[in-house]
Amino acid sequence: MSRALNAPLVIQSVEQLRQWRHAVRMEGRSVGLVPTMGALHEGHLNLVRAARTACDIVVMSIYVNPTQFAPHEDLDTYPRTLPQDIALLSGPHGSRPLADVVFTPRTSDIYPDGITTDRSQQRGAFVEVLGVSHQMEGGTRPHFFRGVATIVTKLLNLVQPDVAFFGQKDAQQCVVVRSLIRSLCLPVQMVVVPTTREADGLAMSSRNRYLSAEEREAACVFYAGLRAAQTAFMAGERQRDKLLHLVQTEIEKAAPLVQLEYLSLAHPRTLDELDAVGESGAILSGAVKLPSTRLIDNLLLDCEL
Amino acid sequence: MSRALNAPLVIQSVEQLRQWRHAVRMEGRSVGLVPTMGALHEGHLNLVRAARTACDIVVMSIYVNPTQFAPHEDLDTYPRTLPQDIALLSGPHGSRPLADVVFTPRTSDIYPDGITTDRSQQRGAFVEVLGVSHQMEGGTRPHFFRGVATIVTKLLNLVQPDVAFFGQKDAQQCVVVRSLIRSLCLPVQMVVVPTTREADGLAMSSRNRYLSAEEREAACVFYAGLRAAQTAFMAGERQRDKLLHLVQTEIEKAAPLVQLEYLSLAHPRTLDELDAVGESGAILSGAVKLPSTRLIDNLLLDCEL
Repeated sequence: MSRALNAPLVIQSVEQLRQWRHAVRMEGRSVGLVPTMGALHEGHLNLVRAARTACDIVVMSIYVNPTQFAPHEDLDTYPRTLPQDIALLSGPHGSRPLADVVFTPRTSDIYPDGITTDRSQQRGAFVEVLGVSHQMEGGTRPHFFRGVATIVTKLLNLVQPDVAFFGQKDAQQCVVVRSLIRSLCLPVQMVVVPTTREADGLAMSSRNRYLSAEEREAACVFYAGLRAAQTAFMAGERQRDKLLHLVQTEIEKAAPLVQLEYLSLAHPRTLDELDAVGESGAILSGAVKLPSTRLIDNLLLDCEL
Repeated sequence: MSRALNAPLVIQSVEQLRQWRHAVRMEGRSVGLVPTMGALHEGHLNLVRAARTACDIVVMSIYVNPTQFAPHEDLDTYPRTLPQDIALLSGPHGSRPLADVVFTPRTSDIYPDGITTDRSQQRGAFVEVLGVSHQMEGGTRPHFFRGVATIVTKLLNLVQPDVAFFGQKDAQQCVVVRSLIRSLCLPVQMVVVPTTREADGLAMSSRNRYLSAEEREAACVFYAGLRAAQTAFMAGERQRDKLLHLVQTEIEKAAPLVQLEYLSLAHPRTLDELDAVGESGAILSGAVKLPSTRLIDNLLLDCEL
């Protein structure tokens, strides 16, 4: 198949991916993986740039994973923009692409036993990371991190990267995946890349495109609230109530358009809720609801993921 | 550490294993893994011999996996015979050992978040293979195959073998592991090795050493029953009731010492119970109870695992 040299190699077949991976290994080149669901934005591109710096070869996987959506969620309408995604990953004419390979697997390869959201009818292997999957985002989305842990395990086994790159925006996902890698003894390093933000601080997200102009403008109160708490933390505030109240106050300024769903001040490894930030620091995170979609964001108080 | 050249290299540390594995990969040599819980007998040695034929290097893992035992089962008393196991794997003076490496991991590396049989308190990643884990052996041992799938995933990720070898004696385990490998896209081939038997047909098992002399003699009715059904199958019998009745009749000859726990005539991939053996063949299997222990066995009717 001919392709422009500045475009990524698109691989759909598992067999082709395995052959390609074997050849790269034999050449002794390192591979970085950026797993995504596509609908790329600047945040994804910063993950790719981090991978390019650390690894010889960069693979981006693009796969909208059905098992991390609940039946009432937006699986069917989740944005799928593969041609634009590939264009974004292509370099200027005559230069190397930003990502060397785009892996777009078929669902029949990823879920060979089929998929159903009815858990009692599911077949095949599923991975759960106990202890960090059922609070925060997992509290309102109880199947979400099982879906994430399962697809990440499959993608790591398929691509076999030396390093995998995840965005800090999905803070709990980072905690779950780090626990997954350690617990399943997966032979891969993990790198967490800071959240990329719009000029007004809104965390970049594929779901931001659902926002109306009015919602988009109002949404910035979320980050403003997190920043207010971070500023107080840096000035010495450690108490949960005080820190969360600062976030809440900012978000309420955009009511009723922006509704707080939950706020969390959690230990960065156990995700236990904290009464006060201790020596291990904390993840300050939450979710807000707008008429068109739901947004998550977080800031790290003196910790890493 | 000096060792006799005819003895296997014993590796306990994950870091040492990873370094060793990398070196072997760079030399382009293939690796076969035989995962065991130790207490080796001739059946395990036949797995090693199969691995030696197919692969350049043979690794045996020896690890008594706590998560596949229920609280009332024999985790504490399960035979642990590492020095004898290593002796069995050593070759004659001046020759190569039967297994090149024995991997005996620490529980702190395998379960870095600790282990508890209280499922609500468990932390870390667990793997479940839905559809084939909760009937037959999984019917009476509901956590068993979750423990098996989890430890096999970890061992495959640690040793990264080209081929993994399992015994047909644990037929459902073979079905679960084959589904696991396919479903999690694990980069490994699986080979099932036929059951090794004593002269009177008793399947070799580490738990056979629990049997008293009287029990040992009586236990052979189990295989005799399976053989009677197999003989009828080869003569054309396909009906479940007829086939299972033949097994049952033999086992009852050793009552009350040998008690039938269950018999199964199941589809070789879905493990659905069959009214009659169809084109896909069947796994004829069961479990019996004796005063000192519980034994499982199976025969394959026109199918492979």
